Amino acid sequence: MHFQDELEQLNARLLEMGGLAEEQVRIAVLGLVDRDRDLIDRVLASDGPVNALHIEIDNRCFMLLALRQPMAVDLRGIVAAVKINTDLERVGDLAINIAEAARQYSNHPPVKKLIDIPRMATIAQRMLRDALDAFVRRDVALAQSVLNEDDALDSLKTQIFRELLTYMLQDPATIEPALDLILISRHLERIGDHATNIAEDVIFMVSAKDVRHHAAEE
Amino acid sequence: MHFQDELEQLNARLLEMGGLAEEQVRIAVLGLVDRDRDLIDRVLASDGPVNALHIEIDNRCFMLLALRQPMAVDLRGIVAAVKINTDLERVGDLAINIAEAARQYSNHPPVKKLIDIPRMATIAQRMLRDALDAFVRRDVALAQSVLNEDDALDSLKTQIFRELLTYMLQDPATIEPALDLILISRHLERIGDHATNIAEDVIFMVSAKDVRHHAAEE
Repeated sequence: MHFQDELEQLNARLLEMGGLAEEQVRIAVLGLVDRDRDLIDRVLASDGPVNALHIEIDNRCFMLLALRQPMAVDLRGIVAAVKINTDLERVGDLAINIAEAARQYSNHPPVKKLIDIPRMATIAQRMLRDALDAFVRRDVALAQSVLNEDDALDSLKTQIFRELLTYMLQDPATIEPALDLILISRHLERIGDHATNIAEDVIFMVSAKDVRHHAAEE
Repeated sequence: MHFQDELEQLNARLLEMGGLAEEQVRIAVLGLVDRDRDLIDRVLASDGPVNALHIEIDNRCFMLLALRQPMAVDLRGIVAAVKINTDLERVGDLAINIAEAARQYSNHPPVKKLIDIPRMATIAQRMLRDALDAFVRRDVALAQSVLNEDDALDSLKTQIFRELLTYMLQDPATIEPALDLILISRHLERIGDHATNIAEDVIFMVSAKDVRHHAAEE
């Protein structure tokens, strides 16, 4: 097989893994909002495909590095794929964490109508999708737009925390379920962090410029 | 310079970075326990060296992959170094997160005498140190011992959560500071997760056996 075909297969696998991880997050949050134990249990039972892809992609990257000895942008692309693979596996883990907290939450009466958490989930999923599209298309502008979205996620997280704190202070019966929601908002924030990591890798891969740690500003 | 010397320099840099990240965690938790704002602020002001090493180590790995075209165990070692570098940078970030929560916590009267959180910190720091030693010495048995320690961290986290929940239910004035402690215990758990990731990479690097996702058991 040609090297370029192998790189395309690698990209296809990363997109597939990203799609699976994103779907796990979507179903976990849907299960939370609809208090649907079947949906929640489905997420808890189905980390197998993401984990299998994690190992397969790692092996593909090793084979490409060992047998093809890629240079320059191809080398940076494969090292980026190793890192992105790790990020996507963690997103899969975070979907499980969300489902676990959602299951706990469903044991209590609802604290409030959930609006901001689904909003956070939508943003985090879009960031993840855009970051992966940016990787495959080598689109620096799209990667940059992912970095810009992180603030929206951060301010929603702060807003959710303040609101839930008010509930907890007013009614101790809400403390346990409100804690579940706070932890879920943190998990969603971390999914945004992983999308940000991927976007930074894309910018480095394409431009060989390191945007991490605001190096550009220093 | 000889290839083996370059690999040793890479390892030395990773150990240096691990030492810095571990020290950041140690000082953040000391600042929390002693309610010492100077220590806390010191952590918040000093992520520069860890971030600089993160970029330097990444560049070293790229250069080694591009110029030396390593094979077999050396290739796996350099790819492991790329991943370990990412894990150590996140540990540095988590030290910052702990310091931020410690600063918030110091604005409230203490909820309780802190015993289990310093205990978690000690375990997480030891796991990190052992995982890095295992990497440098290619010591699979030591890496395996790191994996075994993760349960201790997990049960301390659960214990801390239950105890703090009791405080919160009894006295709403403890809700905010108890939340800070719960988040700190989660940050420490995640440092243990990063040490676990490193240990898994070591086992894979040395034995080319994938212990992730309990692949060995399947």
